[in-house]
Amino acid sequence: MVQVNMETHLLGANELLARRNRQLFKDHKVLVINLMSSPGSGKTTILERTIEALGGQLRLGVIEGDLYTDQDAQRIEKKGVKVIQINTEGACHLDAAMVGKAYGQLPTDKMDLMVIENVGNLVCPAEFDLGEDFTAVVISTTEGNDKLRKYPLIFRQAKAVLLNKMDLLPYTDFNLERFKNDLDQINPSATVFMVSGRTGEGIENWTRWVFEEVKRKNPF
Amino acid sequence: MVQVNMETHLLGANELLARRNRQLFKDHKVLVINLMSSPGSGKTTILERTIEALGGQLRLGVIEGDLYTDQDAQRIEKKGVKVIQINTEGACHLDAAMVGKAYGQLPTDKMDLMVIENVGNLVCPAEFDLGEDFTAVVISTTEGNDKLRKYPLIFRQAKAVLLNKMDLLPYTDFNLERFKNDLDQINPSATVFMVSGRTGEGIENWTRWVFEEVKRKNPF
Repeated sequence: MVQVNMETHLLGANELLARRNRQLFKDHKVLVINLMSSPGSGKTTILERTIEALGGQLRLGVIEGDLYTDQDAQRIEKKGVKVIQINTEGACHLDAAMVGKAYGQLPTDKMDLMVIENVGNLVCPAEFDLGEDFTAVVISTTEGNDKLRKYPLIFRQAKAVLLNKMDLLPYTDFNLERFKNDLDQINPSATVFMVSGRTGEGIENWTRWVFEEVKRKNPF
Repeated sequence: MVQVNMETHLLGANELLARRNRQLFKDHKVLVINLMSSPGSGKTTILERTIEALGGQLRLGVIEGDLYTDQDAQRIEKKGVKVIQINTEGACHLDAAMVGKAYGQLPTDKMDLMVIENVGNLVCPAEFDLGEDFTAVVISTTEGNDKLRKYPLIFRQAKAVLLNKMDLLPYTDFNLERFKNDLDQINPSATVFMVSGRTGEGIENWTRWVFEEVKRKNPF
């Protein structure tokens, strides 16, 4: 019982801070995407591709969430984008307080788009609002067909679902039809992008869509 | 601060129950493996292969951990093995209390080997002792090369590490040499098996090793 109350209390505090973040993002006219997936689904590679495509047109910022290491932040920095690394030191998700603190270290009034790459995990990150405009979830063709049903919460909330590693599809038993049917049941309004971070296939559809979302929030 | 105390308290209670489970497993002479990985790394497929190989020689039992659904339990049941499904209803890991309760529903004094398939997650499951004899962690060649360094705790504790999806290795950028070097630094005593749950490649080395571990605990 104490455990349950505790959780409620923590989520309550997180909601307040998420609301504060959301107001700041609105004031600064920055579109914020919370990018989530299982470990190894390809979030960072997709983010690198996104920066390559949009870096010339938009002012970007990135917050990287990892338990340990700054490997992903280093990869993003090489693309010439300002990035803040959060190390959760064992925690399985980012929370609104961590993001609020990291956000303050970015050029907050000089960004059009900020991507928060969450900790690789399909469970905990789904439970913590960071104040983002929307979440995007990456799933890959090599992860099998049962992930949507097993982790419905994270997919139900997503505005965009990226099916990654399309280049490996022919070598797997992944069933596209079943994927579409399951997603239709869990979240029929999600926008789906079939991509390969490795080859770049389909990335343009995704980045064009993101660009439109940025313009919708801030029509310059 | 309250959060930290709470966690300590919960882990303390889990330790007591894990110790109780471990004593029961010892009394009943059953070897217990806690099988962990990221979602979609191939735990269930490897477990199916393990049952096919060892079902004729050993009396097996399985505990399946998932947030929702009993898809995996159904797959295991088809192999003719007694299986208990735990649905964590949102929790990102199994704990010793859940396992103790599920264990009581298995034929406890008539098993040689019990495998606990944990929730797909590289973070939370590593923090909860279930009373197992040892943990085995599955990682797949399609997850990229950075997982060992990003999630060191789960790999540091593992007695066995299974590198799965070897059939997809030629189509990925996964670097075997780097994997071995990273594992040598994090956990040099781990026994490594390179397998493909899909094709069956390398599974025999794993099942022969498990059989020897069972015999070591209970020399019949």
